[in-house]
Amino acid sequence: MSKNDAKTADIGSEKGLKRRDFIKKATTTTLAATAVAASSFPKPSLSQGRMKWRMQTTWPKNFPGLGTGANKLAEFIGRASDGKLTVEVFGGGEIVPAFETMDAVSSGTIEMGHGAPYYWKGKVAATQFIASIPFGLNALEQNSWLQFGGGQELADKVYLELGCKFFASGNTGVQGGGWFNKEINSLEDYKGLKMRIPGLGGEVVKAAGGNVVNLPGGEIPPALSSGAIDATEWVGPYNDLAFGLYKSAKFYYFPGWHEPATLLDNFINLKAWDGLSDDLKAIIETANSYANSYVINEFVANNNASLDTLVNKHGVVVKKFPDPVLDGLGALAGKVIGDLAAADPLSKEVLVSIAKFRKQSIAYAKFSEQAFYNARGLPFKWVDL
Amino acid sequence: MSKNDAKTADIGSEKGLKRRDFIKKATTTTLAATAVAASSFPKPSLSQGRMKWRMQTTWPKNFPGLGTGANKLAEFIGRASDGKLTVEVFGGGEIVPAFETMDAVSSGTIEMGHGAPYYWKGKVAATQFIASIPFGLNALEQNSWLQFGGGQELADKVYLELGCKFFASGNTGVQGGGWFNKEINSLEDYKGLKMRIPGLGGEVVKAAGGNVVNLPGGEIPPALSSGAIDATEWVGPYNDLAFGLYKSAKFYYFPGWHEPATLLDNFINLKAWDGLSDDLKAIIETANSYANSYVINEFVANNNASLDTLVNKHGVVVKKFPDPVLDGLGALAGKVIGDLAAADPLSKEVLVSIAKFRKQSIAYAKFSEQAFYNARGLPFKWVDL
Repeated sequence: MSKNDAKTADIGSEKGLKRRDFIKKATTTTLAATAVAASSFPKPSLSQGRMKWRMQTTWPKNFPGLGTGANKLAEFIGRASDGKLTVEVFGGGEIVPAFETMDAVSSGTIEMGHGAPYYWKGKVAATQFIASIPFGLNALEQNSWLQFGGGQELADKVYLELGCKFFASGNTGVQGGGWFNKEINSLEDYKGLKMRIPGLGGEVVKAAGGNVVNLPGGEIPPALSSGAIDATEWVGPYNDLAFGLYKSAKFYYFPGWHEPATLLDNFINLKAWDGLSDDLKAIIETANSYANSYVINEFVANNNASLDTLVNKHGVVVKKFPDPVLDGLGALAGKVIGDLAAADPLSKEVLVSIAKFRKQSIAYAKFSEQAFYNARGLPFKWVDL
Repeated sequence: MSKNDAKTADIGSEKGLKRRDFIKKATTTTLAATAVAASSFPKPSLSQGRMKWRMQTTWPKNFPGLGTGANKLAEFIGRASDGKLTVEVFGGGEIVPAFETMDAVSSGTIEMGHGAPYYWKGKVAATQFIASIPFGLNALEQNSWLQFGGGQELADKVYLELGCKFFASGNTGVQGGGWFNKEINSLEDYKGLKMRIPGLGGEVVKAAGGNVVNLPGGEIPPALSSGAIDATEWVGPYNDLAFGLYKSAKFYYFPGWHEPATLLDNFINLKAWDGLSDDLKAIIETANSYANSYVINEFVANNNASLDTLVNKHGVVVKKFPDPVLDGLGALAGKVIGDLAAADPLSKEVLVSIAKFRKQSIAYAKFSEQAFYNARGLPFKWVDL
């Protein structure tokens, strides 16, 4: 997945054209236009004990995978509160430009936003460590860290800097490793590789000698086809299939070491949150838990089917990064991430907590989930019905 | 984990003595006593639009891991509904004997129960395929199957036979492989092995030539110490450490191929469920989603720390089942499970659906979570803070 400032706004879309239109719309909106747009929507209203809130997402409305969790969140808040609190969902750019969603929530223009933590790294650097870290925790571990490893408290501390309450509200799981027109046989092959890969993953590829570029989504397929870039990452089989990237690249690499568990955030204006009654707070917390599971469940089910389609219908060549490459990238990731965290006390506090949880998680995964996956992947035939 | 009829009630406990007391209490309660106990509790009451429900769990109240999800479920229902529906939690045996919890819910004596699906296999065989299947889905995939693979509809169909609405309400994740005093170097080593392992896993060990026994929890440590049994499975590092099994066995094997994702169920009397307003239905659905995540998050965090304690404090020798053994057990599991499902149309319907989801899940896991775990487990040093 991608994360960027509003200028190179890159938030995924099923269709290049649709996405390009969206980006254009989002990036050409001026601050003045924003103010007009904001004022043209009704302010939150409270009548007969019934509140109306507005939530803007950073992605287009109903965007597959990333956007459906926000819809479920709003739906369950309205249903569970019997209309005491209803949340209207707006796509990126509908109230303010997509990447000004946080400003709109921080300032109280709207009450809620839905996006990904690393979109806000320009405001508070530590948010990028809440999102997903190269070779860090996977979704299962990240959720456990949030609930039992002190993660929720740290995330709330980070979002306090933005004037917001934080909830995890979706997860992509391990992403795809990216679409390549050059083979990666050794770490040397990254030298001079022109790759579109944003965020921390991009910093690691840079450290490996790569020539990292940022492109809006719609420009990726032609750039890949023409050789202007050698490789790009996107999300995973579900979104990548819909985006048609298999038409422009020879190889689909795995695993997505750069984004093992990209978390989606629901951020709520802190004053709006603090003003809620306890029942509405409980409803929002459980509805976010529902959305958090719903999104990764949707990704897993659709990635399952989409990978099957990519390989068996479109003949995509799937390749694993060789272990020495992954080992080398892992070491570079440690260096890059450690340096970034050392420069910012709050980032460091988050990373120290995650690193501690990660150390035990690696040992336990080797005993449990990892070992089970490997055992289940052995050649035996299971049930034949 | 274990699953059995009430006679050998085996539902885990931190302390052998405490557990034995509990089992004794549960198993010596007669039907007459049950009726008295049931009548000594107030019937669900409805006053001023406020309802009170009772939920009995199959485990002792507040039982670590297994029992805390039920508490969270009740807590969030009460909070989110602002007391419109409050659910009082009773431990196994407090209203009726633990394994009569389903009868009490089916008959409407109480409105809600919390347990594990395979406890009800004596009533409806297909429940054991909802719970966890040897070499089947892991928790991530099981949740995705339930929400996007037709699993919820099938589980509701299975629980309809019991007069109940079904919700997934917790998951142990991949369990431990068990505590052994004999090494397992080949499938041959299962011949004559005396092992306490209930359920489908037990059927597989039997098929491998094992001598499968059932013992109440409190009798396991002495039986293991005396050599009356050679091995036992239990839950995972968190509960196994608390139970002190490391004192009675030489080796802790992994992975728990027999229970890769044991699901906990929240079952609701169907008439009580159907009579709820939509807001309370939404609250119960999201509160169960919260509990479902909460339980596995608790297991992961505590298993992480407990495995560390077992290995680094108690010097436990952790061993992986050799791949040829796992491959052989996988083939036996397929045969055993296939035969069981073929004998029962509803079981077969569930298993066919799971097998289809599992096939794509295996391919996708090799591209995503499994490959990421393996990459992250390479020798590189990550951040050093």
